Amino acid sequence: QKMKLCVISGDGIGREVVPQAVRVLHRLLPALQTVTADAGWDTFRQQGTALPAATLAAARDCGAVLFGAVSSPAYPVVGYRSPIVQLRRELGCHANVRPTLSLPGSGAAEGIDLLIVRENTEDLYVGEEQSDGDTATAIKRITRAASRRVAETAFRLAQDGGRRRVTIVHKANIMPLTDGLFRDAARDVAAAYPQIAVDELLVDTAALKLAQAPQGFDVLLAPNLYGDILSDLAAAFGGGLGVAASLNLGSEAAIAEPVHGSAPDIAGRGIANPVAALLSLALLLRHWWAQPALAASLEQAVRRTLADGIATPDLGGDASTAAFCDAVLVRLDLD
Amino acid sequence: QKMKLCVISGDGIGREVVPQAVRVLHRLLPALQTVTADAGWDTFRQQGTALPAATLAAARDCGAVLFGAVSSPAYPVVGYRSPIVQLRRELGCHANVRPTLSLPGSGAAEGIDLLIVRENTEDLYVGEEQSDGDTATAIKRITRAASRRVAETAFRLAQDGGRRRVTIVHKANIMPLTDGLFRDAARDVAAAYPQIAVDELLVDTAALKLAQAPQGFDVLLAPNLYGDILSDLAAAFGGGLGVAASLNLGSEAAIAEPVHGSAPDIAGRGIANPVAALLSLALLLRHWWAQPALAASLEQAVRRTLADGIATPDLGGDASTAAFCDAVLVRLDLD
Ligand SMILES: CC(C)[C@H](C(=O)O)[C@@H](O)C(=O)O
Ligand SMILES: CC(C)[C@H](C(=O)O)[C@@H](O)C(=O)O
Repeated sequence: QKMKLCVISGDGIGREVVPQAVRVLHRLLPALQTVTADAGWDTFRQQGTALPAATLAAARDCGAVLFGAVSSPAYPVVGYRSPIVQLRRELGCHANVRPTLSLPGSGAAEGIDLLIVRENTEDLYVGEEQSDGDTATAIKRITRAASRRVAETAFRLAQDGGRRRVTIVHKANIMPLTDGLFRDAARDVAAAYPQIAVDELLVDTAALKLAQAPQGFDVLLAPNLYGDILSDLAAAFGGGLGVAASLNLGSEAAIAEPVHGSAPDIAGRGIANPVAALLSLALLLRHWWAQPALAASLEQAVRRTLADGIATPDLGGDASTAAFCDAVLVRLDLD
Repeated sequence: QKMKLCVISGDGIGREVVPQAVRVLHRLLPALQTVTADAGWDTFRQQGTALPAATLAAARDCGAVLFGAVSSPAYPVVGYRSPIVQLRRELGCHANVRPTLSLPGSGAAEGIDLLIVRENTEDLYVGEEQSDGDTATAIKRITRAASRRVAETAFRLAQDGGRRRVTIVHKANIMPLTDGLFRDAARDVAAAYPQIAVDELLVDTAALKLAQAPQGFDVLLAPNLYGDILSDLAAAFGGGLGVAASLNLGSEAAIAEPVHGSAPDIAGRGIANPVAALLSLALLLRHWWAQPALAASLEQAVRRTLADGIATPDLGGDASTAAFCDAVLVRLDLD
């Protein structure tokens, strides 16, 4: 079966990091077939939708997707919906996997190696809101099925990765039924993994402890919104958004997605950091294509490049996006 | 009119820091009348409610309240409701004011002086949840009235405190109606304060930036849950929970509330840090009793004590709660 990747650059620096990261990936997978597809704000302005049907079809067909970054309007625009949120849901990518590591030369503190596993399809992201102009409500929906599913993924990844502990994040003191359900479903799943320790933290305490000692965490398992907040927070200790990688993982598809946005302030100058996109592809290699050796050599090459003092301006270097990727290619250890 | 304070110690270290902090307050306000009242987990076990009617009546009568800390059950217990959440709502304390400062000897980074103003009555804290066991929903409610009210407080405090900028925190890209309403109401209020700059951040980005450069913030204005998370996070950069103060502020009442919990792990040893309770009382002096000079001398005395290397064990010292307060009393500059 042929390996295919649906390549969605999106807007802004998405268009700069994605082609470069794909260039590196091609060296690892010479037979990879790529299909480019449109999404984002420019797409919305041209086609009236931020996620055209053709893009969704291509993504489904490929299974594997690289999603760069998209711009979004500051104020609601009729007909506009976040394409990444839609894509996650449409492709059934129920878990959002976000590692934070101490990378050399990134300014990250030493000894951080944590993984946030974020539920990716429900919570306040279901988009069920109402308003009469003076009172607005939004629905936070938590199901046992989705909570179990993402917990399964968290414990499986913990086990496969030789990790020791999963921390369930919630606010069940205030939301005993919704967050309580998430917590209880996760605890049920935990029972099947007796060799992995499990504990829990309120989301406010989790933020505090993450800031005080990110080294103390192993796997964090969280509902959608808390996972969103905590993974950005963790990125602050792992070298910033320029290096923060993620993988949206399901059973039918997986979307590699750098956590950063389209960064209009630096777009067009060819200096965006491709590390987040490269490490997101490494996650795709490891967890979707089941190529751990290739994933490791890509990660190793990125590490070596950074350790050699090569970096884009966000990390204090002067390398361009392309020059950084050239340096990574030189350091790829392929047999 | 006589000054009265309703003193609610609660559970655990609440019972240790509250009496000591009140002892210091009495030196500043010798004529202060105090009324003690029960709340918390022990109260629930003895009286079947965590917030007895007598406590609520005393709090209403006094207007000013010091609320220590309470223990809460890890799993839902029939009839138990968080007394502090109830008290905030019953007393109409619509704003939760949480400063973070670089205090000497607290391990805090230099140059931090930020204020989080958190909406305190609605959002997911309305407690409207449903569940059939497999699917649970919670209502997030945002009203224009409450959003305007807390924004008014934020801008007024910014103005009175000589501050320059208010940052509105939301996630309107995902919740355009609810968080969009909060943002828009805050922007409306901002228009009446042309001398104060206003900007906005998504809550995930706010967490990231707070972690990267807490010095870059002035006032943060947030809905209830984001304010809860961000204020714990900010506390991590301001010396931890041992020194994190807050004031729940309304037009009929104000509740001084150290942010920390009842800390069962250290309760009973007389070593809890009273700084959070002392600085919460300073907020009460400044914003409720309109005694800025007394507030400043209390804050100054706490600073001097810390600067002199006197601290409880959480900050690496060996002072007891009582010894720390003795040291503060010695350093109070009263005419
Ligand atoms: C862009 C936005 C919809 C998205 C989210 O909230 O999930 C982003 O913050 C992320 O973390 O991927
Ligand atoms: C104890 C809990 C109900 C409370 C809250 O969530 O408001 C606490 O975390 C706080 O920040 O005061």
